[in-house]
Amino acid sequence: MLEKLFRPSSVAVVGASRNRDKVGNIVLRNVLSTFRGKVFAVNDKADSVEGVKANRSLKEVKNVDLVVVAVPRTVVPQVMEEAVQVGAGAAVVITSGFRETDEEGARLENELVSIARKGDVRVLGPNTLGLVTPAMNATFAFADVLRGNVAVVAQSGGIGVYMLNWAQRTRTGLSYFVSLGNQADVSETDVFQFLAEDLETRAIFSYLEGVADGSRFLDVVPDVAKRKPLVFLKGGTGKGGAEAAKTHTGSVAGSGELFRAAVRTVGGIQVDGLEDMLNLAKVLTADEPIRPDVLVVTNSGGHGVLTADSIESSGLKMVTLTPGANEELKKVLPPQSLPKNPLDLSGDADSERYRRALQIVQDLDCTKLVIVQSLPMVSCSEVARVALEFKGKGVVTVVMGLDEDAASRTLELARMPAFRFPEDAVKAISYVLKRRPPQRKIRVPQPLEEARELVEGRKYLPDYVAMKLMELYGVRTPRWAVVEDPSQLNEAATKVGFPLVVKASTDEPIHKTEVGGVVMNVERDSLEQAYKLVSSKFKRVLLQRQLHGVEVFVGGLRDPAFGHAVVVGIGGVHVEVIKSLSYALSPVSEDEALEVMSESKVTQLLTARNRNYDLGSVARTISTISRLIVDLNVREMDVNPLMVNEEGAYAVDVRIEL
Amino acid sequence: MLEKLFRPSSVAVVGASRNRDKVGNIVLRNVLSTFRGKVFAVNDKADSVEGVKANRSLKEVKNVDLVVVAVPRTVVPQVMEEAVQVGAGAAVVITSGFRETDEEGARLENELVSIARKGDVRVLGPNTLGLVTPAMNATFAFADVLRGNVAVVAQSGGIGVYMLNWAQRTRTGLSYFVSLGNQADVSETDVFQFLAEDLETRAIFSYLEGVADGSRFLDVVPDVAKRKPLVFLKGGTGKGGAEAAKTHTGSVAGSGELFRAAVRTVGGIQVDGLEDMLNLAKVLTADEPIRPDVLVVTNSGGHGVLTADSIESSGLKMVTLTPGANEELKKVLPPQSLPKNPLDLSGDADSERYRRALQIVQDLDCTKLVIVQSLPMVSCSEVARVALEFKGKGVVTVVMGLDEDAASRTLELARMPAFRFPEDAVKAISYVLKRRPPQRKIRVPQPLEEARELVEGRKYLPDYVAMKLMELYGVRTPRWAVVEDPSQLNEAATKVGFPLVVKASTDEPIHKTEVGGVVMNVERDSLEQAYKLVSSKFKRVLLQRQLHGVEVFVGGLRDPAFGHAVVVGIGGVHVEVIKSLSYALSPVSEDEALEVMSESKVTQLLTARNRNYDLGSVARTISTISRLIVDLNVREMDVNPLMVNEEGAYAVDVRIEL
Repeated sequence: MLEKLFRPSSVAVVGASRNRDKVGNIVLRNVLSTFRGKVFAVNDKADSVEGVKANRSLKEVKNVDLVVVAVPRTVVPQVMEEAVQVGAGAAVVITSGFRETDEEGARLENELVSIARKGDVRVLGPNTLGLVTPAMNATFAFADVLRGNVAVVAQSGGIGVYMLNWAQRTRTGLSYFVSLGNQADVSETDVFQFLAEDLETRAIFSYLEGVADGSRFLDVVPDVAKRKPLVFLKGGTGKGGAEAAKTHTGSVAGSGELFRAAVRTVGGIQVDGLEDMLNLAKVLTADEPIRPDVLVVTNSGGHGVLTADSIESSGLKMVTLTPGANEELKKVLPPQSLPKNPLDLSGDADSERYRRALQIVQDLDCTKLVIVQSLPMVSCSEVARVALEFKGKGVVTVVMGLDEDAASRTLELARMPAFRFPEDAVKAISYVLKRRPPQRKIRVPQPLEEARELVEGRKYLPDYVAMKLMELYGVRTPRWAVVEDPSQLNEAATKVGFPLVVKASTDEPIHKTEVGGVVMNVERDSLEQAYKLVSSKFKRVLLQRQLHGVEVFVGGLRDPAFGHAVVVGIGGVHVEVIKSLSYALSPVSEDEALEVMSESKVTQLLTARNRNYDLGSVARTISTISRLIVDLNVREMDVNPLMVNEEGAYAVDVRIEL
Repeated sequence: MLEKLFRPSSVAVVGASRNRDKVGNIVLRNVLSTFRGKVFAVNDKADSVEGVKANRSLKEVKNVDLVVVAVPRTVVPQVMEEAVQVGAGAAVVITSGFRETDEEGARLENELVSIARKGDVRVLGPNTLGLVTPAMNATFAFADVLRGNVAVVAQSGGIGVYMLNWAQRTRTGLSYFVSLGNQADVSETDVFQFLAEDLETRAIFSYLEGVADGSRFLDVVPDVAKRKPLVFLKGGTGKGGAEAAKTHTGSVAGSGELFRAAVRTVGGIQVDGLEDMLNLAKVLTADEPIRPDVLVVTNSGGHGVLTADSIESSGLKMVTLTPGANEELKKVLPPQSLPKNPLDLSGDADSERYRRALQIVQDLDCTKLVIVQSLPMVSCSEVARVALEFKGKGVVTVVMGLDEDAASRTLELARMPAFRFPEDAVKAISYVLKRRPPQRKIRVPQPLEEARELVEGRKYLPDYVAMKLMELYGVRTPRWAVVEDPSQLNEAATKVGFPLVVKASTDEPIHKTEVGGVVMNVERDSLEQAYKLVSSKFKRVLLQRQLHGVEVFVGGLRDPAFGHAVVVGIGGVHVEVIKSLSYALSPVSEDEALEVMSESKVTQLLTARNRNYDLGSVARTISTISRLIVDLNVREMDVNPLMVNEEGAYAVDVRIEL
């Protein structure tokens, strides 16, 4: 239970320095100026700090819920012992220099956690900036934030401070602010779980570099996202960034792709950067309903053109106005203008023209993106006041010009989203609409008995064993046969049929084409020659019926954080070049598989030029493989190509590592 | 000559109303309050306007260089006649309602231009917001802008006003501001040409929906871009936006792809949106040298991680610090920290630590991206003052926190770029570095005599004629033969060799595969059968040697604005699905072809898996086709696939429309 952490009745600050530049002093002052419950200061040298009587040791304190620790790292385990002794329920360890720094730090971190766990003390940190609740500020940031409905959860202290500053600057009210630090005990998932139940929190914004426990994350977070929007900014998606993250919060930044797949699974929204997160916050903290169809209303043709471009390229849709609305709008527009979308009210529009136009379109089922460029006839503030009259009608505004600050303040105080650039508004809207329904992934290995026997004791599956495994799972393969001796060649070839492919058959995966281990398009008259060529280098040879069709790539992998996942893309050599890949966590339903196929453009490839290739059997294969890798705990596998034509999908080359 | 437009000694405002809400009045006031030369007001009803004696007609005015026209559209041709009579050299026609509105407007526009051309009067507009020069404001926007070195050229009045507001808000000094309007006479290229020579202008920022004359643009603008940075924002890149542009400035928004190719050719920089343009302006108007290698210096680990991610994904490079610098930096950092990039000065860094770190790295040949998050130990403004000490050392700053406004003002006044988000800084830097050297494209049709004979009088080339044409130009084709009668079959097949492809041969391009007009992998034993199949539907049959390799797409087209261009991409059916295409204007050198191949990932495909496919022969083919389409004035053609293997590149299917 995190009640004592997030809703304590009493707080002790240990390391409450008298020096006003010290972290311990700043935390104490922040707590004193915000918290109405009992506050204890602990300082081993002074009798009082900031006008409060100081205790020499935590042991002297009775009935404390939460202990905030700001003492040198070597002393922290001792303080934790004392916290256990006095029956504290939670601790915020602000001190840094633990796992993120060196081995000694890692050892101290393990020590403090094991003391805390034994004594039932939940620990936030170490290496945290602290915590803001509706009732107190227990951080060492001077954050004078309003109470409100937005929760911020940040793994990095610096990003945390930035978000606090942002809240202050934009007068965004916060419910909770949690700096996670090293997550030695309390993890991001714990915090999300608490915030899901918290009645004051309407939306959660997080900065994470990795997750503490991927499988718990996948278990718990879908229920959080069912209750309120949950936004993720991931640090360390690139190599350099991941490297930096390691020494920064001691976290191993997981694979960016898998993180993205996990966010989609749990129903979160992942943004591409800090600015995008702030822009999305404008929409999520407002009360306006957001629709994917957009009507643009503007007084500048150029703004309309740029906005339409941006709507199109972001996958939203410009609506077509109804004939009825068109008739009405004609009366509002200047003589020679025709109503259309973007609706150009023209440079001489005053705020009354905006009002009349909005009255006409207010009940259309679309987002009204109202853009105003301040011009001699109209200011941003005037149009902002008009927009307020249409609150709740799906109005998003863009205010551009000298008084844009004042106008956006007017709108945001009324919980209406206001942007400075059309592109930012469009991007924020498209983030909201990209959210998927939260899903729980149930991963129960149920391998077939025969499958388990096939893989038993192996690290790699020989190619023909991999083929057998595919067949056991109901994935089709082109007809094939193994030839270990020239005498078997003709019978095997007859069984397979022509044209066929003669391939080296190996126990471990190799790039067969590169070592001259593959001859394609073999007919009966060239069979012997092709066999001789391949068998001169490789003892065992695989014959496989040659198929035509489109090549699709289906891979499977086991991620250290999020477990088993599939990856799908355009196949053959293109997979390496185009990198149009899409990931999904196991198990994958046929329906989700279709989504992944569309994202990775596999669907488009299978249906190009009026092809009628079998999408369903590809989806089925993806779904099967997503289960197979869980059943057999596969480390990495790929089917490349999965050859698809009108008759179905066939696993042609299969590589499996257990 | 545009001297009279841009540097007039006297100005007349025609339609100088006494009503302070009217455009004509506002223009007059703007001119009066800024211009030191002689100003005339023309008003057919009043004796004086704004304290200036008014003339009843322009005919009464002597020695006027520039006439600003703000009268109803029907009167504009008459005013233009008078401007010719009094010997004016230029006119700014602010009146709207011309080509952008209706047919009557188009007629009036043609009329006014023909009068002006006959009388040697250069016309800016109609439908323009007007013009700001270092000596006057002849617009109807209340723009109190500083004099400076940035020129703004905008096709849209609304975007123009936005840029004026931006200049005012950010205290960016402008040299010229030109609202192009309908470009009936003076075009964007005319303006660029003038600005190239203007000594006050250091950089040019433009918003265009299309260009007035593409071939003149290509001729003139490379010389402009050689002299100063030239930035383009294109409106109407999407379908909806292009549609809107038509009724807005009466311009046909050209193809977005070709515009992009044109900008690259002339050596401009194209930005993706208004916000990007403003961010790029920060870098281009500053004096800091920009390098592609970046060192990040920050006091927040999270900011460092996000910035490193963004640098990686934008194609810039995080530098590795030298051992010498590392040694020095160790002395600056807190005990347990190690110097690396991003250089995390840690949350307790004060401005002195920033100063000492910058002293150590200041002479390294890289961009120093200095990021400060305001924290208890340091404010943005303190670090801004430190940054000033390193002006000229390649310092770009990002200031984040409560005093970010003040800090960025300090920096920008000193001509140092300051951003609010690391991603914006990184994007602006990457724009600067994407600029290509300006090129002139010399397009001289020099068709071979035989080639001209082949195409004479045709709209489409029959497939085998297209093959002959390829060979004439030195593009290789797989061995082929035409069979018009069964008796020719065997001889033709022997000439071609096996395996071969049997294809329908048609006079006009069709999708042969879809109508059952193609049989692949034909050996001698199946030849007759394949021939029967195809010849049952098509009289003429083409045999073609079957080749293996990688399929590349090479197309050619004639753009209404920019003329002939090639388009290159990954071939076969993938071209439609992946749309990884890259465009370049004709003629294309082998060197430029290699660049286009790399952009469209063709290079990556040809070199994947240690392939040693012939890049040079593909580049050569692209270059040849870029010349062929000019020589024969080809409307559209494609080679799909161009089959590439170790031996070269072969045009397999060729479609040409003249």
